[in-house]
Amino acid sequence: MTDLARFSINQMTVKQLSLPELANACAELGIDKVGLWRDPVQTYGLDATAKLVRDAGLTVTTLCRGGFFTAIDPAERTAALADNRRAIDEAATLGTDTLVLVSGGLPAGSKDLHGARERIADALGELGPYAEQHGVRLAIEPLHPMYASDRCVVSTLAQALDIAERFPAHQVGVAVDTYHIWWDDDAPAQIARAGAGGRIHTFQLADWTTPLPEGVLNGRGQIGDGAIDMREWKRYVEDAGYTGAIEVELFNDHLWARDGRELLAETAARFVEHAIR
Amino acid sequence: MTDLARFSINQMTVKQLSLPELANACAELGIDKVGLWRDPVQTYGLDATAKLVRDAGLTVTTLCRGGFFTAIDPAERTAALADNRRAIDEAATLGTDTLVLVSGGLPAGSKDLHGARERIADALGELGPYAEQHGVRLAIEPLHPMYASDRCVVSTLAQALDIAERFPAHQVGVAVDTYHIWWDDDAPAQIARAGAGGRIHTFQLADWTTPLPEGVLNGRGQIGDGAIDMREWKRYVEDAGYTGAIEVELFNDHLWARDGRELLAETAARFVEHAIR
Repeated sequence: MTDLARFSINQMTVKQLSLPELANACAELGIDKVGLWRDPVQTYGLDATAKLVRDAGLTVTTLCRGGFFTAIDPAERTAALADNRRAIDEAATLGTDTLVLVSGGLPAGSKDLHGARERIADALGELGPYAEQHGVRLAIEPLHPMYASDRCVVSTLAQALDIAERFPAHQVGVAVDTYHIWWDDDAPAQIARAGAGGRIHTFQLADWTTPLPEGVLNGRGQIGDGAIDMREWKRYVEDAGYTGAIEVELFNDHLWARDGRELLAETAARFVEHAIR
Repeated sequence: MTDLARFSINQMTVKQLSLPELANACAELGIDKVGLWRDPVQTYGLDATAKLVRDAGLTVTTLCRGGFFTAIDPAERTAALADNRRAIDEAATLGTDTLVLVSGGLPAGSKDLHGARERIADALGELGPYAEQHGVRLAIEPLHPMYASDRCVVSTLAQALDIAERFPAHQVGVAVDTYHIWWDDDAPAQIARAGAGGRIHTFQLADWTTPLPEGVLNGRGQIGDGAIDMREWKRYVEDAGYTGAIEVELFNDHLWARDGRELLAETAARFVEHAIR
């Protein structure tokens, strides 16, 4: 097994690369797995992307992202469910078994976190069977608590599992991302809980660096640049039975300003240095 | 009991006011409690501040802040302990029974959250008896997880209580601040735990507004402007037996740019509107 055998590059990490550029760079560097995002896939074309990755021998480890389930307005809610069905269709077409969900924040004017979390569970009850029919698993991603109001009211693995466990594991599990959970001393126990239930549907890495940028979206640090011990978290998911791909997913304005192929090579090297060797 | 009977204005909320201006504005508005910070107190003079608040009939509800206990270097550690003894002395001189602690982040290059948390406990073992001798209680403030690397490795009330409960409650308790814990569905249970142990040493309010500013320090929202249901959190601490002062503590560049007296009046009115009536 090579050092990169489990490495998957999330497309967003090197979003300056077009899909063909990404496929070529992966071939040159010996990378055979990618995580994709719906927007650039739709821009390039869904069927064209499916053909491109198939011809390049790339495995699509996840599609990001479905979700945004917290609307109260019935029309918004119906639209969100329809959009998530399309996301499931797209995942199936791309040949990935995992759709990552960013569940949504508080609706404007609402202060009701509990109600928003319940609406997420309601939506999953409708989408889970549809996903199963298409061979796709839904992965609830708990996002760091700094996103709780405007992006994702699911802030911890415990909260994500409390929702996921209402459904069969082959329908709904969780995404374990170091960036969102590294501060949480309960997370190792929750990873064990997720693993025991067969619910770790993806494992993603990003490092925690400060100062955080305005809006706190695009400050995910290169592996090794920050506060997170990647080997420790890799050990937790492996001890919980996870043997799947490990995706590196960074959003970072400074990294995006660099040459994409060079950044991809650096990211693969950092993965090996900080998570494998 | 008037609407402002439990209201305390944390000095940082209106840092554009000098201490005499703050005392005058409090008198005009019927506010009789303040939370103070060490830096402006030292600038005005410790004894002068003690006289000022005494003459104005103001109760000092807390002094912010001690802490920064996570250094590994022995000289830094000794200096931190000495500085915290001075903070306890200052609290006693100002007549407050509560010193709020911001415990410190990861030392440069360290990724060991657990070790940092243990060093906080070690420091409290040394400082607790000293604080007791001076009639001062130490309040561990869990800070939002977005500060875990650079400011405070204690990110939840559960973590704060796990440390505090190693010591007598009259030596070490916790600070409950809505801004830091509002996202945490375990926090209500932890407030009950803290109350049962007599460890809620202060209760502070700030609202959660987005987008967060760069560095995420000065984005604490005016009461009522954000996502937090203040009545709900007030009910949790009251159900846990807390009957003390309620401090409003905001750090916000936009609020600091305004007239300080007007901001104080607005803050008191918002407190009444969103937490009392």
